[in-house]
Amino acid sequence: MLTNVRSDRVKSVRSLSRRSVRERTGRFLVDGPQGVREAIRYAAERVDDIYVTSAAADRHHDLVAQAAEAGIHVHETDDAVLAAMADTESPQGLLAVVSTQPHTLEDVLASGPRLLVLLSAVRDPGNAGTVIRGADAFGADAVLVTDGSVDVLAPKVVRSTVGSIFHLPVVTGLEVEATLTALEEHGIRTFAADGVGSTLLPDVDVSRPHAWVMGNEAWGLPAEIRDRCSDVVRVPIHDRVESLNLAMAATVCLAASAGATRRA
Amino acid sequence: MLTNVRSDRVKSVRSLSRRSVRERTGRFLVDGPQGVREAIRYAAERVDDIYVTSAAADRHHDLVAQAAEAGIHVHETDDAVLAAMADTESPQGLLAVVSTQPHTLEDVLASGPRLLVLLSAVRDPGNAGTVIRGADAFGADAVLVTDGSVDVLAPKVVRSTVGSIFHLPVVTGLEVEATLTALEEHGIRTFAADGVGSTLLPDVDVSRPHAWVMGNEAWGLPAEIRDRCSDVVRVPIHDRVESLNLAMAATVCLAASAGATRRA
Repeated sequence: MLTNVRSDRVKSVRSLSRRSVRERTGRFLVDGPQGVREAIRYAAERVDDIYVTSAAADRHHDLVAQAAEAGIHVHETDDAVLAAMADTESPQGLLAVVSTQPHTLEDVLASGPRLLVLLSAVRDPGNAGTVIRGADAFGADAVLVTDGSVDVLAPKVVRSTVGSIFHLPVVTGLEVEATLTALEEHGIRTFAADGVGSTLLPDVDVSRPHAWVMGNEAWGLPAEIRDRCSDVVRVPIHDRVESLNLAMAATVCLAASAGATRRA
Repeated sequence: MLTNVRSDRVKSVRSLSRRSVRERTGRFLVDGPQGVREAIRYAAERVDDIYVTSAAADRHHDLVAQAAEAGIHVHETDDAVLAAMADTESPQGLLAVVSTQPHTLEDVLASGPRLLVLLSAVRDPGNAGTVIRGADAFGADAVLVTDGSVDVLAPKVVRSTVGSIFHLPVVTGLEVEATLTALEEHGIRTFAADGVGSTLLPDVDVSRPHAWVMGNEAWGLPAEIRDRCSDVVRVPIHDRVESLNLAMAATVCLAASAGATRRA
């Protein structure tokens, strides 16, 4: 049982809350039973260590057993050590340290994707995580993220994905214009989701391969990015409402795409 | 210019962050330009006071002019006073104190509503606010909230609605079973939105009056509530994903209802 909150191990796990450390070490933190469960299920070979309190080990004995069976090091800790390792104020007693798996746009394009999401300058961790979760739920093939966006391996983003970060490739550090060009060259239509769009969502042809392009929470997509897209699409909403938030707009667009896939 | 952070006025405005004070005084706080703008536009007669820093008054001079024209008391404050009044860590320089307007279920039912949302034991302020914003965007006639839910006049909820709290009636303190009975007696079908539902969202008849019933973030709707509803409806999602979060599910259901309204 790990009980020394001042140990090098505790410091090293805790330091993964910082982007620079994640990038240098190629590792990130997953906290909470749902995220850890999906890590074991979908990426066991990348899970370096699991830390669990006695109470959480009792609550989630199946999960601990699966981890041990997969050959993952499971360490019991006391509550203080787990709290010192975790980034959250109320950790749920279970943490995993996972190696990153870099995905490339080339790999994604080579797989013949039918539905993608491109996040451009999205800054809020909860929004980014919710969009990744929505992309997963509605059957997207990958999420693409520009270099001006939040780090998708930040603890708050990983937590908001509730495990979806392990279900589909998330490509980061992309340049938005080069990415739009690459998508178009591969026959993937690019739909800017923006309240200024003149095309309404129900009128969009989502039966062929396409990517939803989502902009920043506050200022949306700059005109020069919108103009580069195949179409600018608006979710029809009541006049009295200025806008939907980013996660809501992405959810509605992705649900429309998923509906078309089911009908096809 | 108000400069005394220890004044009774500052204490009295700040105390509106507490539910007990809101209930005793019948007043609540609105912070940020978007919320204050909608308060002036849709509920000017209920806006008691507006507090604004010099910088914010410059940025939003149209808004300050509208408030003055509507006969609302506008008080300039220094940054410290506004920060002491506000509940947020980064206030946007603009606050309104607004009188509550109690709505009743009877009034809502008498208006012949076609689309409603019933929140049962929803606890997270951001979720509640986002659902109210979504209900507004997709043309719902009112939002109904059970007594075990978050206070919709809490600053975090009001902020998340981005002004929508002034666009449609929000009825609070309801008992869930009595509300379901009242809805049914008025010919309004009740659709429990829950991942266990056997009816898929695209198969639901949303052309007639109906209410979406949304449960708690963590445990959903209890079986006895689901059984009381006309139908239990599931948003179709990918097998690998356990669930959508509450705000996403509500958004997709409401968007489906709004789509049917447009087609009708």
